[in-house]
Amino acid sequence: MAAAAAPVWSVDPRTGKRRAQVAEEATTDAVDAAVRAAHTARGALADRPPRAALLRRAADLLDAAGEEIVAAADAETALGSARLTGELARTTYQLRSFAAIVDEGGFLDVRIDRPDPGLTPPRPDLRRYKIPLGAVAVYAASNFPLAFSVPGGDTASALAAGCPVVVKAHPDHPATSELCAELLRRAATETGLPADVVGLVHGFRAGLDLVRHPLVAAAGFTGSVRGGRALYDAAAARPHPIPFHGEMGSLNPVVVTEAAAAERAERIGAGLAGSMTLGTGQFCVKPGLVLTPEGEAGDRLLASLTAATEATAATEAGVLLDHRMRDAFLDGVRSRAQLPGVQAPLAPGDGDGEHTVSAGFLTVPAARLAAGGPHDLLLEECFGPVTVVARYADDTEIGAVLARLPGNLTATLQLGDAESAGTDAAGRGARLLAEVTPLAGRVVVNGWPTGVAVAPAQHHGGPYPATTSTATSVGGTAIERWLRPVAYQDTPPALLPPELRDGNPLGLPCRIDGRPEGA
Amino acid sequence: MAAAAAPVWSVDPRTGKRRAQVAEEATTDAVDAAVRAAHTARGALADRPPRAALLRRAADLLDAAGEEIVAAADAETALGSARLTGELARTTYQLRSFAAIVDEGGFLDVRIDRPDPGLTPPRPDLRRYKIPLGAVAVYAASNFPLAFSVPGGDTASALAAGCPVVVKAHPDHPATSELCAELLRRAATETGLPADVVGLVHGFRAGLDLVRHPLVAAAGFTGSVRGGRALYDAAAARPHPIPFHGEMGSLNPVVVTEAAAAERAERIGAGLAGSMTLGTGQFCVKPGLVLTPEGEAGDRLLASLTAATEATAATEAGVLLDHRMRDAFLDGVRSRAQLPGVQAPLAPGDGDGEHTVSAGFLTVPAARLAAGGPHDLLLEECFGPVTVVARYADDTEIGAVLARLPGNLTATLQLGDAESAGTDAAGRGARLLAEVTPLAGRVVVNGWPTGVAVAPAQHHGGPYPATTSTATSVGGTAIERWLRPVAYQDTPPALLPPELRDGNPLGLPCRIDGRPEGA
Repeated sequence: MAAAAAPVWSVDPRTGKRRAQVAEEATTDAVDAAVRAAHTARGALADRPPRAALLRRAADLLDAAGEEIVAAADAETALGSARLTGELARTTYQLRSFAAIVDEGGFLDVRIDRPDPGLTPPRPDLRRYKIPLGAVAVYAASNFPLAFSVPGGDTASALAAGCPVVVKAHPDHPATSELCAELLRRAATETGLPADVVGLVHGFRAGLDLVRHPLVAAAGFTGSVRGGRALYDAAAARPHPIPFHGEMGSLNPVVVTEAAAAERAERIGAGLAGSMTLGTGQFCVKPGLVLTPEGEAGDRLLASLTAATEATAATEAGVLLDHRMRDAFLDGVRSRAQLPGVQAPLAPGDGDGEHTVSAGFLTVPAARLAAGGPHDLLLEECFGPVTVVARYADDTEIGAVLARLPGNLTATLQLGDAESAGTDAAGRGARLLAEVTPLAGRVVVNGWPTGVAVAPAQHHGGPYPATTSTATSVGGTAIERWLRPVAYQDTPPALLPPELRDGNPLGLPCRIDGRPEGA
Repeated sequence: MAAAAAPVWSVDPRTGKRRAQVAEEATTDAVDAAVRAAHTARGALADRPPRAALLRRAADLLDAAGEEIVAAADAETALGSARLTGELARTTYQLRSFAAIVDEGGFLDVRIDRPDPGLTPPRPDLRRYKIPLGAVAVYAASNFPLAFSVPGGDTASALAAGCPVVVKAHPDHPATSELCAELLRRAATETGLPADVVGLVHGFRAGLDLVRHPLVAAAGFTGSVRGGRALYDAAAARPHPIPFHGEMGSLNPVVVTEAAAAERAERIGAGLAGSMTLGTGQFCVKPGLVLTPEGEAGDRLLASLTAATEATAATEAGVLLDHRMRDAFLDGVRSRAQLPGVQAPLAPGDGDGEHTVSAGFLTVPAARLAAGGPHDLLLEECFGPVTVVARYADDTEIGAVLARLPGNLTATLQLGDAESAGTDAAGRGARLLAEVTPLAGRVVVNGWPTGVAVAPAQHHGGPYPATTSTATSVGGTAIERWLRPVAYQDTPPALLPPELRDGNPLGLPCRIDGRPEGA
């Protein structure tokens, strides 16, 4: 008799109470079965049209079940139905975007070289495109039960690439995960594909089993540095290592110049409050460090930040995704507030004392941050509605703090009008842009990093620990993570895949002899 | 007083004797100095025109010093002046090809999305391109003292990407490495760049120091599975892991169909002899396993292979790159030949008994290979002029052997005329193509895998252990290994890099809203 599998509970973060048992943790055998089923199903995704049909059908089914999904997700995450309705729209838009990307076919990166016997060595007929890697593992995020979970960007981009997916559900929303997986599997069967192009497993141990499974060809992860690094290490330690695309932690620094503060302190303070409290501060692109000038303009900015954050508190419930996160948030704020020189003009608090938190911010002299030591704690992400405002005396202090920062998903500049126009004597805008570009994968000017657009040119990634690879997990090029090139040399026309045949019968974007076709 | 650094000797493989001391092994401090110098020089490569000028000047200087380089390389490698003259031509062609790639700019992968406030979430102005990762480490290969060493593909593609390079020389050709590094550094100063965009270090320990150095942003390697895996593991174990692009081992299977053997057994046997003895069998794409039908046609093929290999012996000196490799080759052949069922119709031998080897081949029933066990040794690369011919009874045995193969750089099919035309009843050509594609990065039909063209559509990589990443080390897209994307959001026109400005002032290939410009 097998040992009883551990139950998986759906928990209400508003009370900390179990709602229902929704599944069981996957045993090693269950993970093996899920991976084998996905691997076996991969042939069904070899051609592009069924992939596009699957993605569109999945979007339709998710939209149709919208009310049920939003209710399920809200009950487990307390993110609220407005936010979750928006997240579902983002999720289905993302699925349809990838269907369009599949149709267009530019991601295949077709390249055809005509033979040239005069070169050293002689050039044969070479035709290259990209093929799917195989079954992949996806690790769902806590903070996006839809857009970065079962029906999220990793799943959408992997299916678009032709890779079946086994998702490891996040324990904060197992019921939502089950519901969405069921809809995705139904979308598969309704488009004539095996349901097993999408699988779902629960449990910490199952996550490790998954990344170590010989038939798993790549993995995508969104979560903490600790969890992501453990899985990255397991992926790298395999007998056959696999690509591991982890999106982990990010401080998302903001630099507010003296001119920007002088010109619009109030607007910046209010914008910052909105961005850092959005989703109760549970975004990977939450601005976590804001370099703000000392003096009167900076003071006005802080006053506005205080007022706007307090106003937000009236409308935000302040429930975090789970009680473990609430503890970590309160501990994180406490340990940071105790550092020498740190003040709390609006201290983040424990809300109702039991289930919620309240937003706030800390301040610190930039010189303290530049000095390192225990203040390096302020350069680590603190998940939840808090930001650290570092007050600087001059540009040198800005540079000294930036030099200490680890990699980030985003870096943001708030510039004055002349700095934005490049007409200030110091050329400060261009200089700051050059200074923050090495630190981040996305640079935002005069805006805020929250609200990651699903768009062809998006890049959601950055130097470690923001991500473990140079790839993106949002936007059109996210599909590149699940592909590898293959070249066919002197292959007879009758045997070539249609994508690589003369005359471009599928009308794909193509490079001939290294130049875009038609160029 | 510092301890004396270990001397680095240039050794003549024709005698095993030391020729001269050419350098010292780099201490940890020396590696640190080289990396810091390269890191400091990176700004000089930020713009594309100086990179292209550097690559072209380097090619010119190498060509001008051709006689000296070929003599130096031949003295250390015994590869012969004809081969080395060809390799130098390949190397300078490669440098100039990357200069053209830099000029064209498609590798920047420019993508511009216009704002669309109607989307969920709203889409801002997003502009993305790729930027250099920083200073990179390159590990030179034993078997290509030029094309995969100091002035080789990794160096060329990294400089093209804007990344300074520190090369770890291969101990088989330190004098050639010093000479080439000096020319590359002179090319830099002659084009107004710091010499330190190229650095050179010697020594095993230096190689490990290099991959662990915090300022090294990525690494490229060509060599053995053991060496490559050790460096890969070190790269993955860093506090901040870096991309490690290792090209390691490959068996390069060949399938000869019954029809192909019946139609042209003699030509295939002669072609195989030429491919597997080329460069004394010291190519990463040497065909190491040849599935050949049992029966009369296959017998004719082996007779032709024997005759052609013996004929080659008359012109090939048979000196391997060093005496350690000679020992490994002889040991490898001996242990393979002892396996049950293995025969040696033309046994590879120890040449003059002291410094050379002679080419040959082994045969084994395919059923033995399919059964695994000790015969798995035959599925490992054996560096040097030997190949294993597996005789099969039917298509099932072909499939059973292919199913046991690890990842490869190449897979080759020798098909009959009707199979090539897709007119045979069995559709064998298409079926075999589909069967070998998952095993390799390049599929060759009716040709041989040796002679890796430097071309835009080339792919020189494959499933592990062929390479540790999905990237290529030869061909135009090799540049992608040294870049990462960055997106600029709502950035004022005056601050944008010229590559991302409206109106495409640099005339770069570009995608607008996800579509190729003009499409």
